[in-house]
Amino acid sequence: ILLLYIQKKTFGVGGNTIHLVTVSACMRLACHRSRNNIRQAKIVKGRSINLALSHRGRQALKQVGMEDTIVSKGIPMHSRMIHSLNGTQYPIPYGKKGQVTLLLQPAETYSNTKLNFAHKLLNWSTETGAMTFLRADGAKEEIQADLIVGCDGAFSAIRKQFLRQSRFNFSQTYIPHGYLELTMPPINGEFAMKPNYLHIWPRNTFMMIALPNLDKTFTCTLFMPFDEFENVTTGDQVIEFFQKYFPDAIPLIGADALKRDYFRLPAQAMVSVKCSPYHLSDKCVLMGDAAHAVVPFYGQGMNAGFEDCLVFNEIMDQLNEDFSAVLPEYTRVRVPDDHAIADLAMYNYVEMRSHVNSKWFLFRKYIDNFLHIIMPRTIIPLYTMVTFTRTRYHEAVKRWHWQDKVRNDIVTRRACWPWHCLKFSDLASLMTCHFFNKEN
Amino acid sequence: ILLLYIQKKTFGVGGNTIHLVTVSACMRLACHRSRNNIRQAKIVKGRSINLALSHRGRQALKQVGMEDTIVSKGIPMHSRMIHSLNGTQYPIPYGKKGQVTLLLQPAETYSNTKLNFAHKLLNWSTETGAMTFLRADGAKEEIQADLIVGCDGAFSAIRKQFLRQSRFNFSQTYIPHGYLELTMPPINGEFAMKPNYLHIWPRNTFMMIALPNLDKTFTCTLFMPFDEFENVTTGDQVIEFFQKYFPDAIPLIGADALKRDYFRLPAQAMVSVKCSPYHLSDKCVLMGDAAHAVVPFYGQGMNAGFEDCLVFNEIMDQLNEDFSAVLPEYTRVRVPDDHAIADLAMYNYVEMRSHVNSKWFLFRKYIDNFLHIIMPRTIIPLYTMVTFTRTRYHEAVKRWHWQDKVRNDIVTRRACWPWHCLKFSDLASLMTCHFFNKEN
Repeated sequence: ILLLYIQKKTFGVGGNTIHLVTVSACMRLACHRSRNNIRQAKIVKGRSINLALSHRGRQALKQVGMEDTIVSKGIPMHSRMIHSLNGTQYPIPYGKKGQVTLLLQPAETYSNTKLNFAHKLLNWSTETGAMTFLRADGAKEEIQADLIVGCDGAFSAIRKQFLRQSRFNFSQTYIPHGYLELTMPPINGEFAMKPNYLHIWPRNTFMMIALPNLDKTFTCTLFMPFDEFENVTTGDQVIEFFQKYFPDAIPLIGADALKRDYFRLPAQAMVSVKCSPYHLSDKCVLMGDAAHAVVPFYGQGMNAGFEDCLVFNEIMDQLNEDFSAVLPEYTRVRVPDDHAIADLAMYNYVEMRSHVNSKWFLFRKYIDNFLHIIMPRTIIPLYTMVTFTRTRYHEAVKRWHWQDKVRNDIVTRRACWPWHCLKFSDLASLMTCHFFNKEN
Repeated sequence: ILLLYIQKKTFGVGGNTIHLVTVSACMRLACHRSRNNIRQAKIVKGRSINLALSHRGRQALKQVGMEDTIVSKGIPMHSRMIHSLNGTQYPIPYGKKGQVTLLLQPAETYSNTKLNFAHKLLNWSTETGAMTFLRADGAKEEIQADLIVGCDGAFSAIRKQFLRQSRFNFSQTYIPHGYLELTMPPINGEFAMKPNYLHIWPRNTFMMIALPNLDKTFTCTLFMPFDEFENVTTGDQVIEFFQKYFPDAIPLIGADALKRDYFRLPAQAMVSVKCSPYHLSDKCVLMGDAAHAVVPFYGQGMNAGFEDCLVFNEIMDQLNEDFSAVLPEYTRVRVPDDHAIADLAMYNYVEMRSHVNSKWFLFRKYIDNFLHIIMPRTIIPLYTMVTFTRTRYHEAVKRWHWQDKVRNDIVTRRACWPWHCLKFSDLASLMTCHFFNKEN
């Protein structure tokens, strides 16, 4: 367990004030460094280190002057690429041109932060903020924290104390699907498929995705219900299964590698965690997966965690870094947004598996994008709001429901065009659009 | 913590087979005995021991031959009694005549069961079923259980082991309301208000209820958001508050007692717990509040717990008491029903506070009861299905949504009468009804 903590004295030194967001964001990156070490022993952990970085995450990095460093190490993704059963491929763009999602590789350590790896938290006091760690050398270390920021993941050790308090709301929901990772090697030193795409093989109750890595490999992730994983027990069954559902992937992964790698690790579980409040007295606050583990189907896990830091930093500025006021406000502001993204990721879990395949989904997508072009301020696709803006997650959801109603009225009931909903800026673009049509 | 466990050897002895439901139901009653002891020190715990017993609970008791014993110690409730702000009262019946809910007082201990009070569970092994208890005398006791039945309440110690397993779904949700109990003494040796009613003072964001006890007192329970409890801090403020919202209750409770008792205990929290699965290997199964703590707004907490036993017993019979088959089947069958009653109790939490007061609620209630009279097999009010039948909870909810749609069509859109939905038995009763109308 990697525990992240901040001692106030470390971030006000020498006139060079470093805000909490700095420390937290760095710590998260440190967290990734730790995962990078794990990657060398990938067999043990079997965890994907492909993380999608988009607008929210970039804004947080920008705030601490690290955006460029990180972005230069990423691979931009412009679009989804859908693989049909018959081997044909077609792209579904994420949003408008120029909107890209980045795959983040581990970053450098930021200065002014003390990192302590391999410190296992044994206990902490909600009253005094005293923490006891077990070090790798077997010695115990006690520290006194001014503020404990628990960013220790979905199975947070910090959060356990919260569960002992009254009136702490908590839920953990496992989805029926597990995941399994396979590697697709380069062909003649080049990517085996088009990079800059999130490759998706949607097959109703299950699906496979593939994400590019800097070393020209792809990490393929197969998502499937646990009971279906149990039906495939021999190498021949694996080939048979792929032949049936992902025939185009067999030569790319390699039949022998497929037979071998499929059984390297059992399928891994995925959990969605929601809780509230995020703070305990003025001593402790939860951020990132510790506060809101999400299923990995919206590519927002890391972005939401980074945005936590940004929101916390904004509130720190507003309330003059007074923890007793900042912490409750952080809970008040952030809980509805994190709950919304957890729900959206769960919703996308269903959508990615089945709807991506359906004509109705594609038609709605087409209508949404069309409406977005003619009314760019009024109709904004949900994915765009979530991935390429800082619209609060819960407001994006509210707006999406409203837009859905408007679009469905237009599509299914041929209702009156909702002119009264138009904003002035949209009117202008609508007129341009009209003019443009006339000219052509 | 009171832990309930069953050793297989104790229920097959001497040719006198006692089914699990027997033991569990008794154990639950033993649980209540324990609460009875707590009642003598009521100030410490502040817990209501008024429990509503209705059809499902009675069916479980009947199965073990204890229905009459228990029912004779209860006070039948025929109806709700609504107290308006201006002091007027009017009843809203629960269902048809003769359908009553009972308030259960503690029962005798059933034979053939060994009860161990004041045994605190320290640990148990999911592999061997070995359990370690701390006794009141400070000694540790180890036992070997064939099956551990965790009925140890909303904060179950048994359930903690489940949380350590992967893929255990769990949620605990605290509602914003707390509750506080007050006693309404008898007047001239008689009940201060009409007994046989659940008295309700609905006041939108908060409410008070009163339930009769065998000693002719009423236990009044005030449900209110925690922040509003915090606004009332002095005896005078209590009187002012009651004067404003519950004026008719002041003389019945007594102003002095009210000022004193209001501050005896802080407001208590209420939690809703849902989880899945209910079993862990073939060693352990959760029942009652340990599996599904519900908020106390449907009067089904104990009934759902007793029905757990009944369902378990039915599955035991079906599957020849083979735990490795019975336990997964119990999870499969029971989880959707317990989740449904937890959701319904939460729904009623909203309804009891505000809708009971509204004309629309009363009108719908009237229509539902009317439809129920003319189509007794087709339209059954939700409360009736839940409280007076053994319709599976999740099926009751499904049917309720369907009925709601039908009724709303009738009321709001004046749609065609859904003749095609009528069952034959309803046609008969409809014809009788028609005939009856003609004659009169």
